[in-house]
Amino acid sequence: MSETAAPLAAPLFDRVAIVGVGLIGSSLARALTHYGVARQVVCADRSPEHCAKAMELGIVERATTDLAEALEGADLVVLATPVGAFAEVGEQLGPLLRPGMIVTDVGSVKQAVLRDVGPHIPDGVHLIPGHPVAGTEHSGPEAGFATLFQGRWCIVTPPPGANEGAVDKVVTMWRRIGSTVELMDANHHDRVLAITSHLPHLIAYTIVGTASDLEDDTKSEVIKFSAGGFRDFTRIAASDPVMWRDVFLNNREAVLEILQRFTEDLTALQRAIRWGEGEQLQDHFTKTRAIRRGIIDAKQA
Amino acid sequence: MSETAAPLAAPLFDRVAIVGVGLIGSSLARALTHYGVARQVVCADRSPEHCAKAMELGIVERATTDLAEALEGADLVVLATPVGAFAEVGEQLGPLLRPGMIVTDVGSVKQAVLRDVGPHIPDGVHLIPGHPVAGTEHSGPEAGFATLFQGRWCIVTPPPGANEGAVDKVVTMWRRIGSTVELMDANHHDRVLAITSHLPHLIAYTIVGTASDLEDDTKSEVIKFSAGGFRDFTRIAASDPVMWRDVFLNNREAVLEILQRFTEDLTALQRAIRWGEGEQLQDHFTKTRAIRRGIIDAKQA
Repeated sequence: MSETAAPLAAPLFDRVAIVGVGLIGSSLARALTHYGVARQVVCADRSPEHCAKAMELGIVERATTDLAEALEGADLVVLATPVGAFAEVGEQLGPLLRPGMIVTDVGSVKQAVLRDVGPHIPDGVHLIPGHPVAGTEHSGPEAGFATLFQGRWCIVTPPPGANEGAVDKVVTMWRRIGSTVELMDANHHDRVLAITSHLPHLIAYTIVGTASDLEDDTKSEVIKFSAGGFRDFTRIAASDPVMWRDVFLNNREAVLEILQRFTEDLTALQRAIRWGEGEQLQDHFTKTRAIRRGIIDAKQA
Repeated sequence: MSETAAPLAAPLFDRVAIVGVGLIGSSLARALTHYGVARQVVCADRSPEHCAKAMELGIVERATTDLAEALEGADLVVLATPVGAFAEVGEQLGPLLRPGMIVTDVGSVKQAVLRDVGPHIPDGVHLIPGHPVAGTEHSGPEAGFATLFQGRWCIVTPPPGANEGAVDKVVTMWRRIGSTVELMDANHHDRVLAITSHLPHLIAYTIVGTASDLEDDTKSEVIKFSAGGFRDFTRIAASDPVMWRDVFLNNREAVLEILQRFTEDLTALQRAIRWGEGEQLQDHFTKTRAIRRGIIDAKQA
């Protein structure tokens, strides 16, 4: 039914229930309404403040702290809480789901969704996890906007044997709000994102933490002269702390594996600096330019 | 001799000789002419291709591979080669310098300038090192532009007892091409820049290198999904390999010291991930937000 911009396309869902109305949840609520993908969007959030803010912003039909109330009449449920809450939310969700409903999510790790939510999904309900590769360093319902997913990737990771009609609806939803969709195995997703997103965030958090432990006078100069490279790291390291805690705890193996490789490589460069091995440094720094060229060629720069 | 910024100010220098006409040298040549800071700009570069390109671009009066020729009649000499060439250039430069001349540079490390160039400076010649905190990931004479230094910091590090008139001229030069100047001790400069610039570059080079060692299929997906954080690192890691080799070799102690702190901090986070210590991760990730706020408050974001 998808027609990308699709002014004339009928809504894909009657009622979408978004669980968790932070940056991503509130952006999705806005986008589903803005692009006419859902007739109605409601949300559940355990924070009454978030619910009040969502109503005040006028981005949902109804906002409630009561999961059962939010799920009434929903044909799509989107989990948009931090990934660490998925097991608990999944358990509460289970008895409220009815055959034919689709459950998806927007988490940055995908195996954990199958592990934590999968067991609570009754027969006839379709779990189709997804990950919009989009975001900003801001958090909360007021930080969202309808065009956040425009021109960004969304990776959908249907489990083996997933219902094709359900997969198609989730894929179409993302396409209609502007994303380019890629289907991927959950395990592979977690390994790719460990290097493209999780490790960069961990490193940015680390270096900014290292700087914030410096003596006060040096610290104020670090802020002053941050344009030399450091600034880019601070933007990344301003991302939501709870979300990122959960990412690392829930993609532990892939993150530790790539972190191990990173540390070995850093140690080799450290050694080259200590012993003045200029040629090795220059070779390494030349090699990395090729990856940048690849990104520019892929129009991702 | 365009007059945008300072229409009425007289040129500060009669002839400026820029040694090394890459990104920074060629930008400075353009800026000195564009803002009327020098009556004439000439350059020396050991690469005949760079010299030809500089003439073709029309950014210098004369371009030569002969240092003596470039220095004729110059009242300011700017070293803009990679820092690793400073000892050799300084040695060639020494006999060509005449009393009253000012020698400055644009290197990213500052103690090394005093160490490598200082001994070759005759009595009556003023060595006033400087560091424009500006650049792009592109290299070469064609990558430069006159406004590169606009709104950026320039750190000037006069040695103890430096001639005040000479310091003033170098400071005024940077101000007239748009920079905000900070005076600093060379040792302190090297420690501050180790964290704001050198470590971020080393880490970016490392992680991009780690990615480029992955199997080919994963690597192409890393490029595809680079928007999740990795992309920012690739831009940094595309910077000039020779320049950065020299920075690390010439700011070894400060870089190794901050790298040691970074590694300790990263190891602590790694351990927290391995053992599932969510609270420690969240605390760390919350702390780093404060630094970002400081940068935003300082209008450096």
